[in-house]
Amino acid sequence: MTARPLILVCNDDGIHAPGIRALVDAVRDLGDLVVVAPDRPQSGMGHAITIGFPLRVHPQPGLFGDIPSYQTSGTPVDCVKLAVDRILHRKPDLLVSGINHGSNASINVIYSGTMSAAVEGAIEGIPSVGFSLCDYSLEADFQLAAGVARKVSEGVLKNGLLPGTLLNVNIPKVDAMQFQGLKVSRQAAAKWKENFEERRDPHGKNYYWMTGEFEWLEHAEDTDEWALRQGFASVVPVQFDLTAHHALDALKAWNMQDWSV
Amino acid sequence: MTARPLILVCNDDGIHAPGIRALVDAVRDLGDLVVVAPDRPQSGMGHAITIGFPLRVHPQPGLFGDIPSYQTSGTPVDCVKLAVDRILHRKPDLLVSGINHGSNASINVIYSGTMSAAVEGAIEGIPSVGFSLCDYSLEADFQLAAGVARKVSEGVLKNGLLPGTLLNVNIPKVDAMQFQGLKVSRQAAAKWKENFEERRDPHGKNYYWMTGEFEWLEHAEDTDEWALRQGFASVVPVQFDLTAHHALDALKAWNMQDWSV
Repeated sequence: MTARPLILVCNDDGIHAPGIRALVDAVRDLGDLVVVAPDRPQSGMGHAITIGFPLRVHPQPGLFGDIPSYQTSGTPVDCVKLAVDRILHRKPDLLVSGINHGSNASINVIYSGTMSAAVEGAIEGIPSVGFSLCDYSLEADFQLAAGVARKVSEGVLKNGLLPGTLLNVNIPKVDAMQFQGLKVSRQAAAKWKENFEERRDPHGKNYYWMTGEFEWLEHAEDTDEWALRQGFASVVPVQFDLTAHHALDALKAWNMQDWSV
Repeated sequence: MTARPLILVCNDDGIHAPGIRALVDAVRDLGDLVVVAPDRPQSGMGHAITIGFPLRVHPQPGLFGDIPSYQTSGTPVDCVKLAVDRILHRKPDLLVSGINHGSNASINVIYSGTMSAAVEGAIEGIPSVGFSLCDYSLEADFQLAAGVARKVSEGVLKNGLLPGTLLNVNIPKVDAMQFQGLKVSRQAAAKWKENFEERRDPHGKNYYWMTGEFEWLEHAEDTDEWALRQGFASVVPVQFDLTAHHALDALKAWNMQDWSV
């Protein structure tokens, strides 16, 4: 192992997005960085992987100065898998994903390619963090988010994370004066209420655009969505054991073992 | 509300896969069915949604007899969203997804489009179940899996599920004589060890195929992977609150609220 930590940087907005550049600059001097990111935007990719198609990997020398950088034709999760197996040939000491253009708080964590890359890192046993700025604009100001990313990355390198967990860090769209600091939170209950917009193509056939409204279902003060709306950056520990442990007893009461199939 | 339950059927192997036909036949007389499924295989799609492209929806009259059926150009999760917002215009009483060709036990739950469709159903407040047969063959025998799917669907219609939870049901590749019955389980710790196979295309450029080996990390008797290997069908309650609640205290001890950014 080298003296300096090995840090893998990825995202879902693509290797040319401003957010990943802000992240690289934020953690650049914390270790030896390698960037492996999709060659195009992959928002909403969730934990998709590429099974039926081959993948391409292209080095991008000079894109981030002297930091080795690779773009791939795959999803964010593919990028992590390719990085570990084919590019780094060893487990990084830290994986940082982002900085995402737009919130990944509350239910958004489940649709997010940025967070799925971090989840995949955690599955691989890498201390992993996803960072998101609650501002979809390509011209968003990443200065505050970069400052948070640096502090949290330092914290994870120093303290580590519990096995099987990672961090989902969201930064509010506020200026430095309004910023309230970091707040450990849990995932708020929320959902998207879809409203597909129907249109007709030039050939007379219908098609649909997905649109939706965010429904904030739980305004509790210990949740990420509450923290963000108060001007805090939210820090949620995330796990990939999806078992609803609290539901096991209720299910056992169904006595399924006695069912004849 | 009609007297008969409204049952939404979806999958990730595509509307023409044998598994969804077995599922339709298994639950056909439990309610009024509607099938909404992808127009092509979407394995490994995870919780991907389609943001940057429009979606198509095409009725498929007669594909499942008199059951209304629609194929979409979207992901499994898109199918659920389209079904609820544009096709059914109301919340179904049950969502069944599958029967998947191949295991979605242990860590596979997180990559699976079949399970993500069920997760999306649960986010929408629909009692939802994903079914998977541990046999990737297109010629797999779905008889046992269909029997399990019917029993579990009856159970969910009768008993309901705790809010925020759904079921991940996996059926082993065994014959009826070897089958041990149903077993409520938790998600086993496991991962895929990737091994990308490198090839060279006719133009001299490299590409990679994702391959991997399943690493079973935890042989505990209360896990789904153990149950399946003993000949049981595993029934795991799943949740979409990804918060690692057990990690909150450790993180709070970092005193992030005192950090200056």
